[in-house]
Amino acid sequence: MSEAADTGGLWPDVQPEAARRLLLAAVDSFARLGYHATTTREIARTAGMSPAALYIHYPSKGALLFEISRTGHEDTLALVRRAAAAEQDPVARVRTLVADFTAWHARTHTVARIVQYELHALPQPQFEVVAELRRRIEETVREVIADGVAQGVFTVPEVRTAARALISLGVDVARWYNERSSTAPEELGRQYAELVLAMLGATRGGPQP
Amino acid sequence: MSEAADTGGLWPDVQPEAARRLLLAAVDSFARLGYHATTTREIARTAGMSPAALYIHYPSKGALLFEISRTGHEDTLALVRRAAAAEQDPVARVRTLVADFTAWHARTHTVARIVQYELHALPQPQFEVVAELRRRIEETVREVIADGVAQGVFTVPEVRTAARALISLGVDVARWYNERSSTAPEELGRQYAELVLAMLGATRGGPQP
Repeated sequence: MSEAADTGGLWPDVQPEAARRLLLAAVDSFARLGYHATTTREIARTAGMSPAALYIHYPSKGALLFEISRTGHEDTLALVRRAAAAEQDPVARVRTLVADFTAWHARTHTVARIVQYELHALPQPQFEVVAELRRRIEETVREVIADGVAQGVFTVPEVRTAARALISLGVDVARWYNERSSTAPEELGRQYAELVLAMLGATRGGPQP
Repeated sequence: MSEAADTGGLWPDVQPEAARRLLLAAVDSFARLGYHATTTREIARTAGMSPAALYIHYPSKGALLFEISRTGHEDTLALVRRAAAAEQDPVARVRTLVADFTAWHARTHTVARIVQYELHALPQPQFEVVAELRRRIEETVREVIADGVAQGVFTVPEVRTAARALISLGVDVARWYNERSSTAPEELGRQYAELVLAMLGATRGGPQP
């Protein structure tokens, strides 16, 4: 697979192994050819399986896209909620949240691109499921920022726009990041965390992790 | 056309009119179907022309993608350079640059998405032309930030990462912005300019435009 490096750790729990292999093959095919131009035949071929074997696990390429998008969004929602719950101090919260969110989008950039850019290829009911996960991610980020504003730690002109900008910064990493990027995902996460804290008007150089 | 609203002002100088109509039809088709799944036949149909008439103006759909990408990048490079040249004060420079760059990506989001997401579909020589424009955009932004750092007006951990983040914020607007967004492109530009100035460690609430 062309960019297998960043998908190795994905779907560790998906069983049977053939289903996991199909998800990885779908990511590889969508990344190479684009979602619209990808056939289930191509995905099966990439997974080293017959088209008939694919249909045992997934009824369509749309079902594979949905599974990739749903799990990708569930992962990032979990990560954002974990950061919000683990820390009390708004600065420490944002630092952990942005560092983890950014590093995820760098490390998992191939999957993240598919998840973001093929969103509108999802059939309406599946789109709604993913849209709801996205609303929860945004909501959690807004709450974290609003809480910091309420505590007098952050100063932002508009919580909604600041939340958008925070998420945007992390998501867009998936667009430009690749294996040749000179900054490691974790280091990029740390740098972005400091930039976002400054953006939120937090005093720079607060307590380091 | 489905999202004609944000393409109306594009390519005002392209002559003859048929060539301009083909560019608009290509944007519409790529946005609806994805680049890979779009045929020249579909582009011609959308423009109300025959496939043979298309080939008079563009030899391939790749040539249309290149024209869209090249002009999109030339527009944003011009805008970034204009902002850098128009202002002396680093804060005023960044304010104008981010406001214009962000508003462009909101207003022209359909074109911006194609320009960004289908970059790797370009044949190598054409890709190189666009990559060079991108390097110049990044370079200009880096210079503007570095100049502010040198003048003691900005404080950033890493000029390169800060430039990436500034560009990223603007570019990603194209991904999520649509006709139903409640914030107008110019207002979003103003809000983003203030967020970026804070991100660069500039004193918030410096002289307003």
